[in-house]
Amino acid sequence: MSVRTPDPNPGWLNEADLHEARRRLPMVYVEAIPVRQDSLGYVTEVGLLYTADDDGRFYRTVVSGRVLYRETIRAALLRHIEKDLGSLCLPQLPPSPTPFTVAEYFPYPSETGLVDDRQHAVSLAYVVPVSGECQPRQDALELSWLSPDQVLSDDVQGEFVGGRGQLVRQALGHIGFTG
Amino acid sequence: MSVRTPDPNPGWLNEADLHEARRRLPMVYVEAIPVRQDSLGYVTEVGLLYTADDDGRFYRTVVSGRVLYRETIRAALLRHIEKDLGSLCLPQLPPSPTPFTVAEYFPYPSETGLVDDRQHAVSLAYVVPVSGECQPRQDALELSWLSPDQVLSDDVQGEFVGGRGQLVRQALGHIGFTG
Amino acid sequence: MSVRTPDPNPGWLNEADLHEARRRLPMVYVEAIPVRQDSLGYVTEVGLLYTADDDGRFYRTVVSGRVLYRETIRAALLRHIEKDLGSLCLPQLPPSPTPFTVAEYFPYPSETGLVDDRQHAVSLAYVVPVSGECQPRQDALELSWLSPDQVLSDDVQGEFVGGRGQLVRQALGHIGFTG
Amino acid sequence: MSVRTPDPNPGWLNEADLHEARRRLPMVYVEAIPVRQDSLGYVTEVGLLYTADDDGRFYRTVVSGRVLYRETIRAALLRHIEKDLGSLCLPQLPPSPTPFTVAEYFPYPSETGLVDDRQHAVSLAYVVPVSGECQPRQDALELSWLSPDQVLSDDVQGEFVGGRGQLVRQALGHIGFTG
Repeated sequence: MSVRTPDPNPGWLNEADLHEARRRLPMVYVEAIPVRQDSLGYVTEVGLLYTADDDGRFYRTVVSGRVLYRETIRAALLRHIEKDLGSLCLPQLPPSPTPFTVAEYFPYPSETGLVDDRQHAVSLAYVVPVSGECQPRQDALELSWLSPDQVLSDDVQGEFVGGRGQLVRQALGHIGFTG
Repeated sequence: MSVRTPDPNPGWLNEADLHEARRRLPMVYVEAIPVRQDSLGYVTEVGLLYTADDDGRFYRTVVSGRVLYRETIRAALLRHIEKDLGSLCLPQLPPSPTPFTVAEYFPYPSETGLVDDRQHAVSLAYVVPVSGECQPRQDALELSWLSPDQVLSDDVQGEFVGGRGQLVRQALGHIGFTG
Repeated sequence: MSVRTPDPNPGWLNEADLHEARRRLPMVYVEAIPVRQDSLGYVTEVGLLYTADDDGRFYRTVVSGRVLYRETIRAALLRHIEKDLGSLCLPQLPPSPTPFTVAEYFPYPSETGLVDDRQHAVSLAYVVPVSGECQPRQDALELSWLSPDQVLSDDVQGEFVGGRGQLVRQALGHIGFTG
Repeated sequence: MSVRTPDPNPGWLNEADLHEARRRLPMVYVEAIPVRQDSLGYVTEVGLLYTADDDGRFYRTVVSGRVLYRETIRAALLRHIEKDLGSLCLPQLPPSPTPFTVAEYFPYPSETGLVDDRQHAVSLAYVVPVSGECQPRQDALELSWLSPDQVLSDDVQGEFVGGRGQLVRQALGHIGFTG
């Protein structure tokens, strides 16, 4: 790690260094559950990404990504939402920085039940209403808008990995969805 | 209280009965602090109503009102916001029903520091982003959009009554405003 | 309703008046989910009351009760916890008055999914750690301490009425339980 | 940074590597505001540490520290509380992992108003009741228990650095203290 030599992008990590850092430090993440609301604010639909891992296995996920050095949480949230849902999705970032939960992903089975093979990630999770046109990111096959009931169905819950099905259930509890 | 005779509006109270109920039961209230946000979700402005009490004394306040029998909290929030800010204010009701605080107003000085001469009110308080055109309600003289710094100034804090200056300070703490 | 004649208990309602008020005004309630924690604060057990309704039907429930006129939320919470769990249960009331959710019970099926035949209740719900000796209230048959997994099981979920199973699921999501 | 050679403490960073990482990645922190409560849960006292920086300048602070690789937030919270307040302080870790706010410290003046010369830290802040005997950590001169009013006084607010006075004000707003 040649951090003492000049760096075109000081303050950020190259891929190799990031790989190492991920084995030494918890990474700060943000996650967003995109939702559509009716005029009273009730959540009518939840946006889930459908994508594939390196082994070609399909799974559902939510907007998720790392917070960079010197980046605010809000800037990271907006960046990842626009990367995953497109720049026309019109997210309404919450007025408060308090997440609805903090998810702790570990690189092995742990007491939290949340797993991320690559790293230890501490993830601040938000419910984010979007009112614009959304399109899935390039490496996502699909963006599906499902009703809260559909999201809680065994079929859909079985398509999450790493414990994200639980995260989405927590989000629905937080918004007061009462199945 | 002639509640056993037919009533054109069953389930609601007339003025005399409401006056009595207010001396016997805690009333359920909602309060909304209207805010404007920038594209990252930071609150740039807080909307305060400027009005007068029966003695002609001017004071600042926020959107506030009672939850009716059989009315949901969301319906009450939207009704009072539209009554106070107009029907074009485009409020973004929060996805979660959890308030940022619960304010307890008592008809006499109490440990909560919040006072309402008329009643014991348990008030669920929300920060509500509005993106449309707002106009103050008929009995309000003015709707002012102030910066968080202005809201916290001694001048403005001195214009609240009943402890609502504290409620607004709590709202600013909740959104992470760090004066 | 003879509220204008002298009353030995001014400010409170007699049974008949309370019956009427329940048909005209939303009632303020508090609910507490008692929990036991390990030394790191993880919830290891949830306390559920087992009781019977007037028809002799058994069901599970949590600590629940009305907030009286001029009573603070904290005083009501403590009163109902001690009434239902005994005076030696040593509850640790939360430092913040913000509930984990607000449950809205209506006297008929509604969009909230929560039902209370007697009234419209707006209920502030809290997770309350208890560290002392608990004993069920007189009209409760049993106080059971169940693991979060047991609480989420279909068997136990089937023993709640009025939507309280959902409330308990929301509480478990709030504490980050990731079954 | 010799992360590719064997390491007696794999997964953790030595001082030099940590110094570099702090210039490249946001660090995950936890902060705890210790409080004492009365029997109803009202906060009666806030615990503040009084310490000195490398230049001999005195300042007040709260419990604060880094989350280590593979360490849960709860384990980090307990470790730092016991380090700063002693092992007999009997902290009551909150049942929920959701912090009352997320504080973002940057190594230069920023929009958050919070500054940490050494690093970019994303800090999860909790109010933690303690019921045991507390003694300040070795490098702290004093642990003071102040009333909420005292904490908000200009004198005490002037003794914080890096924006932590604001963090403590946010904590008091969160618990509903209404000065």
